[in-house]
Amino acid sequence: MRSISLLLNRASEHEPSLNKIFAPVQSELDQVENQLLNRSGASSRFLKQMAKRAISRQGKLIRPGLFLLITSHYGYQGKDKIKAAAVIEAIHSASLIHDDIIDGSALRRGEATAFKVFGPEFSLLFGDYIFIKSIVSALDFKNKELIKILAKASGEMIEGEIEELTQSFNLRISEKTYFKIIGKKTASLFRAICELAAELAGVPEDIRPELTAYGFNLGLVFQIVDDLLDLKSESQETGKMRFSDWREGRITLPVIRALKAWPAEQKKKAACWLKKSQDKKPQSVIGFYDFLSGLENSGAIDSSLRTAGELADRAKNCLMKLEKSPYQKSLVELTDFVLKRKK
Amino acid sequence: MRSISLLLNRASEHEPSLNKIFAPVQSELDQVENQLLNRSGASSRFLKQMAKRAISRQGKLIRPGLFLLITSHYGYQGKDKIKAAAVIEAIHSASLIHDDIIDGSALRRGEATAFKVFGPEFSLLFGDYIFIKSIVSALDFKNKELIKILAKASGEMIEGEIEELTQSFNLRISEKTYFKIIGKKTASLFRAICELAAELAGVPEDIRPELTAYGFNLGLVFQIVDDLLDLKSESQETGKMRFSDWREGRITLPVIRALKAWPAEQKKKAACWLKKSQDKKPQSVIGFYDFLSGLENSGAIDSSLRTAGELADRAKNCLMKLEKSPYQKSLVELTDFVLKRKK
Repeated sequence: MRSISLLLNRASEHEPSLNKIFAPVQSELDQVENQLLNRSGASSRFLKQMAKRAISRQGKLIRPGLFLLITSHYGYQGKDKIKAAAVIEAIHSASLIHDDIIDGSALRRGEATAFKVFGPEFSLLFGDYIFIKSIVSALDFKNKELIKILAKASGEMIEGEIEELTQSFNLRISEKTYFKIIGKKTASLFRAICELAAELAGVPEDIRPELTAYGFNLGLVFQIVDDLLDLKSESQETGKMRFSDWREGRITLPVIRALKAWPAEQKKKAACWLKKSQDKKPQSVIGFYDFLSGLENSGAIDSSLRTAGELADRAKNCLMKLEKSPYQKSLVELTDFVLKRKK
Repeated sequence: MRSISLLLNRASEHEPSLNKIFAPVQSELDQVENQLLNRSGASSRFLKQMAKRAISRQGKLIRPGLFLLITSHYGYQGKDKIKAAAVIEAIHSASLIHDDIIDGSALRRGEATAFKVFGPEFSLLFGDYIFIKSIVSALDFKNKELIKILAKASGEMIEGEIEELTQSFNLRISEKTYFKIIGKKTASLFRAICELAAELAGVPEDIRPELTAYGFNLGLVFQIVDDLLDLKSESQETGKMRFSDWREGRITLPVIRALKAWPAEQKKKAACWLKKSQDKKPQSVIGFYDFLSGLENSGAIDSSLRTAGELADRAKNCLMKLEKSPYQKSLVELTDFVLKRKK
């Protein structure tokens, strides 16, 4: 039996650096970060303080980075470029703020969440606020397709979240349902980013389906890897609480696959164990590791990683129609980063 | 000392009937209700079930009714009329769903809230869902000003809610701050409805400020009366839990005014009592009535009612510039209804 750490570490041996990947658009990415920090448009001192706190806890800016790479590849330099990238990140932030309330997460990106610092009431309104401000901002775009793409993706994200919550603690969830959920809650925004970039940069019609398929597959990889990282990494690495999916009753791909492989007795044990989570009863740390080694032994972790790898290949294949450029090269590398990242 | 029931009942002796007020637009209001019920666009069975439950608990439809009266007065019969009215009600519903989570309200319109039935997690996402679907719907309007007006008002509503939450349990809140809060959280949507109607119906520029001032003042009256009803009415009348403002630490106009009139000892008593609410300690029913009679004796209830009456007069004055019509008459009567309603 290989240890899961070994397995995942092997996959991330050659983790590409995000700084290097985003180097061709770094100055623009800095502008995006600036715009997020300085233009929250908050009307009260308290709101300004909340906005600053939430926004200064920037993540990896993968979504605006992706957007900038595509628009730059197609030579788009219009004035809406930075603003659109900032709106994308703001919509993502709003959804994280609400997610953290739903999951009761105290930790994100290694720091206390808005939920933890300001409580559920303020965080709920703050998520609403960030989202509405993003919509107001996006309404100014000259191209009216942009706001439609963003609003549609936002709706899909929420639908995905609702479907996920409906499936909580359901050990009979199918792989098909899992993919439907992550397609909506995560991959729809990645796809929308590619659509936005294509629309803004006037990408030729025949390339557009390739670009959106790239985004969608990249989003699927992102989520599968996120689910695997929840099993593998300590919170000091991911900045999140470990095993939170299992604690919250989110049945992810490796668990779905392990359940198919496990003998009846082990399935029953998992069900009892999940019931404890659902009833908010304390769980032993040994139990988590026992569960984890059960997943490893079934081959489900390995197989989930392989699936993520196949989807990453599919994403990279979609990029073959793009001409070679530093941006196209970065898009390929971004796919590898998303697949091999450790956090 | 007059009893508060007597005082408020007197004011509502001649409560106009909402059915009569909305009679000139009743068939359109029925279409709005139908559209809300049948076009939620929910993708999953569970979402459809949630949407149906939330929407079938229709309120008084004051907001779409107001919109239809104005557009009809100006003879607008375009295809976006019913849809815009439905979007207005949907945005209002979304904000109520989130409000109920924040207040922990189990009861609204006499029935269990989404929060009570589906829990905080689902209600949070459901509020997001209804809001996003409204935005997506509003993006189809040919006139692009409509969505801008709606999004701006939605932002103000959230800002108002956040400011209100910031001021919770603050007995030093000024009247100016109270009016700023209710202006944003409630009156901004009423104003936006008038703006939307004016925009859609092509109302002459010189009338528009009158119409929006009408809406804003009507919204202020609506909220002041809402705050008074929370003191006066039993839950079987309002469909909400009585004294919920005081329980949740929302310091409303009569309380602000009573605090100015009360001697130091009574102020101290109120502060101790509010502290109990904040610490979620049980409160005696006698305590609530004691607090209420303190408000009555200070004259603050009477004075708040007078203020609402003055604002209603101001609203009605704004309607004087409109030509006489059954719709204009209904708009005047709607103001009286909002002032004198019992629930």
